[in-house]
Amino acid sequence: MTSSEQRPGAHMSAEVAEQPEVLAGLVERRTGIAEVAEHIARRPPRFALLAARGSSDHAALYAKYLIEVLLGLPAGLVSPSTATLYGAEPDLRDVLLISVSQSGGSPDLLEVTEAARRQGALTVAVSNTPSSPLTRAAELAVDVAAGPEQAVAATKTYTATLLALYLLVDAIRGGRAEHVRDLGDRARRTLDGSAEAVEHAVDRYRFVDRVITTGRGYSYATAAEAALKLAETSYLAARAYSGADLLHGPVAAVDEETAVLAVTSRGRGGAAMHDVLDAVVARRADVLAVGSAAADVPAALSVPVLETAEEVAPILEVLPIQRLALGLSLARGGDPDRPRGLRKITRTR
Amino acid sequence: MTSSEQRPGAHMSAEVAEQPEVLAGLVERRTGIAEVAEHIARRPPRFALLAARGSSDHAALYAKYLIEVLLGLPAGLVSPSTATLYGAEPDLRDVLLISVSQSGGSPDLLEVTEAARRQGALTVAVSNTPSSPLTRAAELAVDVAAGPEQAVAATKTYTATLLALYLLVDAIRGGRAEHVRDLGDRARRTLDGSAEAVEHAVDRYRFVDRVITTGRGYSYATAAEAALKLAETSYLAARAYSGADLLHGPVAAVDEETAVLAVTSRGRGGAAMHDVLDAVVARRADVLAVGSAAADVPAALSVPVLETAEEVAPILEVLPIQRLALGLSLARGGDPDRPRGLRKITRTR
Repeated sequence: MTSSEQRPGAHMSAEVAEQPEVLAGLVERRTGIAEVAEHIARRPPRFALLAARGSSDHAALYAKYLIEVLLGLPAGLVSPSTATLYGAEPDLRDVLLISVSQSGGSPDLLEVTEAARRQGALTVAVSNTPSSPLTRAAELAVDVAAGPEQAVAATKTYTATLLALYLLVDAIRGGRAEHVRDLGDRARRTLDGSAEAVEHAVDRYRFVDRVITTGRGYSYATAAEAALKLAETSYLAARAYSGADLLHGPVAAVDEETAVLAVTSRGRGGAAMHDVLDAVVARRADVLAVGSAAADVPAALSVPVLETAEEVAPILEVLPIQRLALGLSLARGGDPDRPRGLRKITRTR
Repeated sequence: MTSSEQRPGAHMSAEVAEQPEVLAGLVERRTGIAEVAEHIARRPPRFALLAARGSSDHAALYAKYLIEVLLGLPAGLVSPSTATLYGAEPDLRDVLLISVSQSGGSPDLLEVTEAARRQGALTVAVSNTPSSPLTRAAELAVDVAAGPEQAVAATKTYTATLLALYLLVDAIRGGRAEHVRDLGDRARRTLDGSAEAVEHAVDRYRFVDRVITTGRGYSYATAAEAALKLAETSYLAARAYSGADLLHGPVAAVDEETAVLAVTSRGRGGAAMHDVLDAVVARRADVLAVGSAAADVPAALSVPVLETAEEVAPILEVLPIQRLALGLSLARGGDPDRPRGLRKITRTR
């Protein structure tokens, strides 16, 4: 694979393209996830906690919405430092702790998972590395089965993790995966159908400096992942806000020099973005709309995404955004496979 | 008050200066908070949720750490949209819901609080407006008693809210407020003792464009508030990351054009910042260190803060940062009392 290692972005490009197949495969093999869901349903939790870092933290944010809305359980994101720095040992009986990590190698997540298990939580590791320390530390494990990922920027492991979390939550509530049966096909059609708009966007934002990403509801996770992807591959000062949080202060910093990547899909989250878009358009920001409702909002450029049930839309919305990050990184002379200063596994405590 | 209304930043400047008195007064009148704590201790919760927006969301983040570390309770931040957009109605028996809002006027927090009470949570409103709809909707109320705040940028209501939350958590665990007895005096000495360094910082960062703020543990809340304060008053593209999250990707976007405001106080959170500072210094970022350990880390400029117990440090750390935001706003020709596009109460759903 010498040639692919030499061409910048070859790994990321290939891994983005693999996603339709990865997603279809995971839907096919969902019985393994359903077995984990059965274990959980036999010990029904009263609260859920999610522990993650980086892109996986955005998958955890997505899962938080799924758990609250579809399971009716209160859920929170773990701040690992309360355990790793301050030694907090909360009583976690009746708590479901889901640790999300593509590598399963981050020491802080391992420590949080081990501590939570001691403190009575039912622990589940969601990982792309079935043999990882994290997977062994948790009582139950979900394999996202995305295959090896070479690029430092997570792409296929991100969407496979979203889908694995959706399948898990759906199975816990007795669902039959009906919203994702043809997701692989929809992913392929989204990648194909958005390619031209993404090319335009790479052109238009070649010299952008200030980027804000925003979304509401389930799509807030997509906005968060978009900001990280643009920051780590294209070194952009990109920042994500939920649409509501943006209006509580940061909107003051939006001006005609700001590009706003707004995730707008059909559904309640997308509908709630109208006020947000009115506010940023009034401040003369340049809006790039991405999603199944992107064509319906005031935007300089719209990137289409196939429509799905709103709760699985984040799995498709991020696909053209990954291609945008890849394209911008290459246009700016970077190598998204090996961003400066980053490694595939970040070891934090 | 015509003259003060005409001079840009007159309100914010006065409100920043009032904080020593506000904090000392709240410590004096803490018995009201202790009574709320007694109610909570009689119905001991198993899980805490915090609901807030804007600056109050950073106070909620601080409280999340307090609750996890000092009370040993798992805690999470509410995503209001799961209730307001998707109608989620989780089972909230044994849950303590703390809603934090200086105005008590945000419709989404009101809706979250009303819904949580119906679903069995013990609800507490922490607000600067005792007569607000939010305060009436909650079962219990804590008055942060900061007095009227005229500037759009929250300052004294922010630190008073932090202190009120600390006093509440401390009283729930049977504490006697020993770490905050002289906090008013320490606040005064911090404002006085940091004034010269803040002036230097206003000079140095007059033309800055890219700012990242970072902290770990309790001080992550200070970093988050710093980014918001700089964005809303000085229109800076400022983003906050926990030190650990920064290393998981966004550090790639840090370069010699980036100013990094690093909150580094004595204690475990500050000690855990050393890896983070090494990484940003290696990328030739310009570091502005703020905190009681600011002089001990590699930085272009250090802003001193009086030492306190680590869990109350955020109440002091933010004081010079407020003055920095005020000074930068004025130096750039803005009016921090009336930032473009913002109102004192933001109405989101």
